[in-house]
This record gives sequence, C-alpha cells and structure tokens, in this order.
Amino acid sequence: MAVYTHLAAEQLAELIDAYDVGPLVSAKGIAEGVSNSNWVVETGGSKAAGSRFILTMYERRIEIADLPFFLNLLDHLAERNCPVPRTIHDREGASFRMIEGKAVVLIEFLPGVSVDHPTPAQARSVGQALAQVHLASQDFGMSRPNTLDITMSQQTLENCGDGALAAIGPELAACVAKADALREAWPWELPRAICHTDLFPDNVLMLGEKVSALIDFYFACEDAMAYDLAVTHASWCFGHQGREFSEGIGRALVAGYESVRPLSLREREAMPLLAQGACLRFIASRAEDWLNTPQNALVTRKDPMDFVRRLDFYAAAGAGAFTDKP
Amino acid sequence: MAVYTHLAAEQLAELIDAYDVGPLVSAKGIAEGVSNSNWVVETGGSKAAGSRFILTMYERRIEIADLPFFLNLLDHLAERNCPVPRTIHDREGASFRMIEGKAVVLIEFLPGVSVDHPTPAQARSVGQALAQVHLASQDFGMSRPNTLDITMSQQTLENCGDGALAAIGPELAACVAKADALREAWPWELPRAICHTDLFPDNVLMLGEKVSALIDFYFACEDAMAYDLAVTHASWCFGHQGREFSEGIGRALVAGYESVRPLSLREREAMPLLAQGACLRFIASRAEDWLNTPQNALVTRKDPMDFVRRLDFYAAAGAGAFTDKP
Repeated sequence: MAVYTHLAAEQLAELIDAYDVGPLVSAKGIAEGVSNSNWVVETGGSKAAGSRFILTMYERRIEIADLPFFLNLLDHLAERNCPVPRTIHDREGASFRMIEGKAVVLIEFLPGVSVDHPTPAQARSVGQALAQVHLASQDFGMSRPNTLDITMSQQTLENCGDGALAAIGPELAACVAKADALREAWPWELPRAICHTDLFPDNVLMLGEKVSALIDFYFACEDAMAYDLAVTHASWCFGHQGREFSEGIGRALVAGYESVRPLSLREREAMPLLAQGACLRFIASRAEDWLNTPQNALVTRKDPMDFVRRLDFYAAAGAGAFTDKP
Repeated sequence: MAVYTHLAAEQLAELIDAYDVGPLVSAKGIAEGVSNSNWVVETGGSKAAGSRFILTMYERRIEIADLPFFLNLLDHLAERNCPVPRTIHDREGASFRMIEGKAVVLIEFLPGVSVDHPTPAQARSVGQALAQVHLASQDFGMSRPNTLDITMSQQTLENCGDGALAAIGPELAACVAKADALREAWPWELPRAICHTDLFPDNVLMLGEKVSALIDFYFACEDAMAYDLAVTHASWCFGHQGREFSEGIGRALVAGYESVRPLSLREREAMPLLAQGACLRFIASRAEDWLNTPQNALVTRKDPMDFVRRLDFYAAAGAGAFTDKP
C-alpha cells in the first residue's frame, strides 16, 4: 500500500489541466491500493475548499483493455443512484489518459470511512447497496467473465501443489479436493448480474450507519448475484483471523439485501455452497500470493488460513449460517 | 513513506471527537513522512466540503519532550502570518494526545503542491517565507539546540570510519577532514533565530508562484539565520543528483530573503562556508543512514554523494555561488 510512481507537481498540474475541473490546488499520495498508486487531488479556489478527486494510476494487474468496462460500470451505476464514485472525463471525453505508459483515471472523491467493526445497521446498509448494484447493472451493456471462479480456484490450488499448501497450513492441502467437490456441485444456473466480488469492509465507505460509497470495482465481473452476496457475507461476518462468526451481522446483511432484491428459494438454498466457494476463491489467491511472496518482503502477506476457518464454518453450519431467525 | 499504524475508523472517530471540529467524515492515510504516519482527515458536513486537517502520529525519532517546542512554534509563526499550519488543540486545550503510547497531533490542512523543478519566482517566494520565519521567531520564548551542527557532522562522519565511507564513494573519506577544517573556521557569532534547517522543496507547498505553506518543522532549532538560508540554497539550487547548479534559482532565493531581511556583510561573507557546512550535515546523516540501512531494504537510501557534489561546487565557487550580479 504505497505510491509506486512519483509524479512531479508539474506533471500533475498538466494532467489536471486536461480536465475541466479548475487548477490543481493540492495532491497527496495516499496509502491505498496494492496494484495502483492513488492521490487525493484538490482543484479550484485556494481559500474555499475546492473539488476533490481520487487520481488513480494503474501500475500492474489491470489490463488496459478492461478499463472501459470498470469505468463505464462506475458511471452506469452512479447514474442509477448507486453509491459509487463517478469517473471524470477529460476535455476530449476520454475516461482515462496515459502518463509514461500507465493509465490514469480521475474519479469523484466520496466521503466516508471504512469500518473495522461493523454494526448490524451498517451491514444492513451494505446489503442494500449491493442489491442496488445488482439491479442497476441489469441493463449495463458490457460484460467481463469471472476469472477467479470455482474452476479457477481449484486449478490455482492444484498448481500450488499439496506439499507447498501443507507447508502453509496442514488443513490447506485438503482444499484441493474440497474445491473439486464444490465445482462438481456448483449451481451455474443462478440469476446473474455484474458483481463486485471483492466487497470487503475496506472497499466500503460509511457515514454513520449508511454506506456512502462502494469502491475498488477492479474485480467486478458477471456472476451469480447470490455468489456476490456470499462473498460479502464471508468478508463481513467474522472477527480477527476468520474466527467468531457474527450471526447478527450476517442476518442484517442478508435482510438488507433482500429488502431491495429478495432471494429466490434456489438462491437461498445455494448460499452455504456459494459461501464455501467464496472462501476457496480467497484461499486460492492468498495461497498463491503466499508462496510467491518472499517471507522477508515488506508487503504483508494475507494468511489463507483466515479463510480456511471460514470455509470450515460454512461447511459445518450449512443453512444455519443464513437463518433469518434471531 | 507509509502509514505505519493502522487506526480503525472507530478509533479515529473517537479521537476526532476530542476536538471541537465536527464529526469525522473521511480519513485517508497519506504516503508522507518517514518517522511518522499521516492522514488527511475531513470533518463536518457530509455534502459540502468540510474542514480538513492533517493528523500526524509520531512513530519514532521525535522526542515527546520536544513536541511542545515544535507545536508551539507552528502556532507562534502562524499567529504572525507566516505560511505555516496551525495546530488544533483538543477540548481540554492540549496540543497533542496519546493513542496506544504514541503522540498524535491534529494540524491545519493547507493547500499547495511541492514542486520538483522550481522557477526563480518560486525560489524568491521561498526566500521571503524563510526570512519571515526568522523575524517572527525572534520573540518565540522557547529554544532547542541544533543537534546536527558542524561539530556533530564531523563526529558522525568520523564514527562512520574512513573505510566504510570510501566504500560508499572514494571522495567521501575526505569529508572528515573537510568537516574538521570547517568546524575550526565556523562563524559561531552570526545572528540567530529559530531555523527550519530542512527546507527542501518537498517541505514547501506552492500555489502557483507563491509559497502556501512551509511544513515539517521537526528539525527546527536555534541556529544562525544565514545557515538556514545556506541549507535552503543547497537544497533548492541543484538538479538531479546534486549536479547543474542553477544561478538563477540561487539569486532569486537570496534576493527574496533579503527583500524581507537583508544579510549583514559578515553573513554574506560567511555564505560559502555555511553552505559547505550545510552539505556536510546532509552528507553525514545520509552516510550514517546508508551504512545502517540494508541494501535490500525497501526504504530508499538517499545517496550522500549528491551532497558531496554540492560541497565541491561551493568549495570551488566561493562567493561566486552567491553573487547578486546576473
């Protein structure tokens, strides 16, 4: 989490001049993003607080070819009153520009803070916002496949190798077979939409009990809507290290979602399986990163075991993890 | 340059509540500071842009006992219309608070950007602002010695050892003797004030051609005013790697300074020597850091040779580096 590229004030000012947002007043590199550099940029008058934006420079991972999908999606959702930041287009109408071979994007700054310990009211608001996105994306003309689906998770874990997985944690090697079984049983026919698929608490900004912004749509893709809810459930309802499931948070999240878009019986029945698939998606990518990141690197490796614990929880709890009875 | 401590939104909100600045609306960790963590914090309304602050948490290096000096200095200078940020006091009147054993300070957010390639007009404005600080600090009741003066620089270089210095750069070993000679000739009797002593371009925010803020006073101490001008001269007038002295920037800087506070003849004569002392101060601390930072650390080591080149320039140019004739 750092700013990977130094942009001189002169370069920044020239860049901002390409947009109809007033002159550059301030720019602070922010410690967010692992595959991009970000700045909080302010433009306009010098005395009164001007307009603020997030300037993002894509350093790696993001395919430039995918950018129009991500950026058009933000504009599409924002137009339909979803709490997502709009993109700012330059004077020629382009949604991104290139600096030194890297794509840069100017995005609306939205207020709010990411919570570490959500309340049920906050979880309810997240569920509502997620359902809003699913409904609003129905008439979005573009699509992008989920390259991290259960098939790919199984493949990734298999590629890591049993020995390497067991070295991280003894329970991890068993995940290859679990992923295989889940893939066999996967309900591919559930209703689909554009999904965030990475809606962890740090990708949600809150003002009090209400969601003010969903951010970081760089894993967005077409998938089952209930799967996106399962990802969000797995990333919001547990305490430190994936321990201590909070039934209250889970119930509020699903209730919030259903207050906007009720789940079908088929979706509801699939939730335990989808949640296990969600866990395996993060187990797979974290295990891969773990094995590829030197132990002494300053980058913090995320422990795949945090999601092995969640996986075990969902496998054991079954439909009980999604009961709406208090 | 990173945020070293994670503060949960809940902790941040509680902290901000201790100040009379309205509720927390937004907080972004910023990639500034090597010995502290910083956040841009916004408080107040949710729609209209509220008030902004820099929240600083001191991680190391700063002695808590020195904090009242640094913070009172900011308030003293701001009251006298110097372009420095005010500190915000909490409801009990305290200028800093403790969180988890670390001191945190809320400071006014000032607009502006740090320039990489200053113009003469910008250098002139920096000179003016520096002289303003020197004059305004005359009735500041507190003091702090310069712990990085020529005596200490000489000592630091000697402690590094000739062999280690020569391994960084062959010219570096000769710096011990140079520091010794400078110390012998040092003009200790020049008029003094509270000096910034670290006014590099990244510690100055600019709006167009004018200084909007001088920041990062954590090396501030009592020393000769002309020495502070020499430090600023050495850090503003050279290109990449300490090459290519810019006579125009240097002249504008000194002229700007003298437009507010003219140098005495004695000060003007001392400038070449003071500038060499300034170079040795950075050579010494950088050489020490270089030897103490593992080569594969992700922290960027600053090359002491950048200031050896400047030292050689000042030694060769003498008074010519400070001529006011174009």
